[in-house]
Amino acid sequence: MSSDEALLERRYHVLGRNAPLFYERPVHLVSGKGVWVTDADGREYLDVYNNVPHVGHCHPHVVEAIAKQAATLNVHSRYLHETVVAYAERLTATFDSSLSSAVFTCSGTEANELALRMARYRTGGEGIIVSDFSYHGNSQTLAAVTTCFPVPEAFPRFARKVAIPDPYRDRHDRSDEELSNHFAAQVDAAVKSLQADGIKIAALLIDTVFANEGLHDPVPGYVAKAVEIVRAAGGLFISDEVQAGFGRTGDAMWGHQLSGVVPDIATLGKPMGNGHPIAGLVGPTDLIDSFGLAATYFNTFGGNPVSAAAASAMLDVLEREHLLENARNVGAYVKTGLRALADKHSIVGNVRGRGLFFGLDLVKGDADRSPATAETKRVMNLMRENGVLISRIGRHDNILKMRPPMVFAKEHADRLLATLDDALASI
Amino acid sequence: MSSDEALLERRYHVLGRNAPLFYERPVHLVSGKGVWVTDADGREYLDVYNNVPHVGHCHPHVVEAIAKQAATLNVHSRYLHETVVAYAERLTATFDSSLSSAVFTCSGTEANELALRMARYRTGGEGIIVSDFSYHGNSQTLAAVTTCFPVPEAFPRFARKVAIPDPYRDRHDRSDEELSNHFAAQVDAAVKSLQADGIKIAALLIDTVFANEGLHDPVPGYVAKAVEIVRAAGGLFISDEVQAGFGRTGDAMWGHQLSGVVPDIATLGKPMGNGHPIAGLVGPTDLIDSFGLAATYFNTFGGNPVSAAAASAMLDVLEREHLLENARNVGAYVKTGLRALADKHSIVGNVRGRGLFFGLDLVKGDADRSPATAETKRVMNLMRENGVLISRIGRHDNILKMRPPMVFAKEHADRLLATLDDALASI
Repeated sequence: MSSDEALLERRYHVLGRNAPLFYERPVHLVSGKGVWVTDADGREYLDVYNNVPHVGHCHPHVVEAIAKQAATLNVHSRYLHETVVAYAERLTATFDSSLSSAVFTCSGTEANELALRMARYRTGGEGIIVSDFSYHGNSQTLAAVTTCFPVPEAFPRFARKVAIPDPYRDRHDRSDEELSNHFAAQVDAAVKSLQADGIKIAALLIDTVFANEGLHDPVPGYVAKAVEIVRAAGGLFISDEVQAGFGRTGDAMWGHQLSGVVPDIATLGKPMGNGHPIAGLVGPTDLIDSFGLAATYFNTFGGNPVSAAAASAMLDVLEREHLLENARNVGAYVKTGLRALADKHSIVGNVRGRGLFFGLDLVKGDADRSPATAETKRVMNLMRENGVLISRIGRHDNILKMRPPMVFAKEHADRLLATLDDALASI
Repeated sequence: MSSDEALLERRYHVLGRNAPLFYERPVHLVSGKGVWVTDADGREYLDVYNNVPHVGHCHPHVVEAIAKQAATLNVHSRYLHETVVAYAERLTATFDSSLSSAVFTCSGTEANELALRMARYRTGGEGIIVSDFSYHGNSQTLAAVTTCFPVPEAFPRFARKVAIPDPYRDRHDRSDEELSNHFAAQVDAAVKSLQADGIKIAALLIDTVFANEGLHDPVPGYVAKAVEIVRAAGGLFISDEVQAGFGRTGDAMWGHQLSGVVPDIATLGKPMGNGHPIAGLVGPTDLIDSFGLAATYFNTFGGNPVSAAAASAMLDVLEREHLLENARNVGAYVKTGLRALADKHSIVGNVRGRGLFFGLDLVKGDADRSPATAETKRVMNLMRENGVLISRIGRHDNILKMRPPMVFAKEHADRLLATLDDALASI
């Protein structure tokens, strides 16, 4: 038994046989730096998956901020502390002025839980609308409304799901406006279906780049139409920025800014502390004030000084290293390269994404654009064997997901594209 | 306006006016070391409240572990990593052999959410029994079953609450056995009341030292009786170890070990990473395996290498510095001192607690032992003014709560006792 196999056996026992693991042959990582990670045998992999180490694995500025603050003070937020207040000011300044206060949590799950509690408190409603291929967290309530993988919980009576338009697969001869109207009609039907069951809508909860759904090219105006319907029925719009946020798309700091709709609450997570567990939400001060009075919300680790220092240092790097600009420039370069691969390999049906977030829809090549699910899995595993880490998404698991740290440069793009070219050629 | 007042104003705006803050005059902390914290004016406070910095504020061994691992690798758990597996092995080894696997989360809230999901999955039931003065987390489901402060959510149809015996207030002429039987009868009635509504019991969720309730002296056998009733009805026993765990009581690593009952699931939190956000649960391998298959549970930050390194380093210190022994010895010394204060000050009705966790029940001195709520608040604020940080608990907010870091020594105890003596004398 190799040392990796022995570790895997120990892991099966102590973390459970079904604790998720990537790849047919799991990677045993020991270190990371920038866009590179290294396994126990000293082999380097180009990381084209991880958005949590947003400004790069182990960025020294963030590491130093964590080390320094951890050595100085780390307590809960019921004392006054400068760092968390300054960070909250800096963070809210990147949003529309209506989103003027913040609450910090440890995870995106906790952020979405809190956003739903606030939405229900504010609206007096209970109903939630989510996309029919989405995930917003691992708690009881959020697991129950999970639609992109099986859960033991029943889909709740208070929730409805709507299908996000997939222009590549659903377009046929429909115009943008028809797709957008079709989506709006679904949202309208969901609101009315809830009402028919005596349930008032509390919130529409969506990721505005629809990453789990498959990162579909946006249909102009469709988010705005859906939000208008939900608000007219008294509900709020919660924008889940866990994947799209902090400049991932290059064109905007927040995903909802691309759709031109200001949410009532935005929830944040993964990249926020470059790997340090911090998440949270931003919303109107009056909502946070009145909910706080009614609920005495407190989160032990949320917004502690080390979390705030890590998150602030992450923003420092994002600004100093001009990483939104990098996401735009390198992103465009990668996309051009991916389009060239699409021309060369017929299995690539569609190239999409924005900034440093790409989806490659692999298809059978028939008129129906049937998903090449098995091939997608093989490409993903081949890439891993050849030293490039990516994943896959979408309802047919046939979309290669590429979402590297924001310090991804053209030289890394060349490596990604060459490895992908080989993998696509060999299947 | 002082700089503290200015910071408070900024905090009101950006974190909300009702974000919880301790003391009439909030403390503006800037650093911490061992059992001491220092404010922005350079004033030192003896910390007799914080259990999160379990082995002391900014313990160098834990800080070094965090700094080193943060500089080496910090990724999610879908790759193989030695540290998290080794930590899970070390952690589960401190439990009964039936609790052989672990799942890591970011917070106690997430741990209790997951435990409830597992209990419902395993039992097919939905019902939850909690104490009538308890708190287990800030998510939708856990907020709804919160009974120790007001929440906007209605207490759910699937939950029942039972009153934990308070031997000091409820005893009258009742024996331990009568108190214990009275509690068992409540649990039995709760199970039957759920059944009458067509709801099967999924879990009894309690903190076995009943910290929020007021840290009452335990009544022998009462937890065992309650668990027997719940199990006979097909439910599980979830022991919330967020407050009692990691040796706080001195006599055992886990609170449930004091009651002699092995839980089906134990949930862990606050002190686990000495302030780094890590929490989790331990349970039977077969439960974690089968739930994992049904639910594909994944937690982005849960059990990442830095969290595991922090938690492992915390255990190192707990062992090397013999802190359970310290909790027993210094705890006994403090308790003797508190009893002397009770003899001296008639307002002290009852001294209780175990290890380094103390409750001082302040009373009016009448036959009913009426709670001295206003006086308790004054003592707490006086202590803060005199450089000692404590809090208060209980359904009448009349129990001084003292729970210092585990490196609390006799010299610190002397300071606590002297300051408390003065405060009790001056009200």
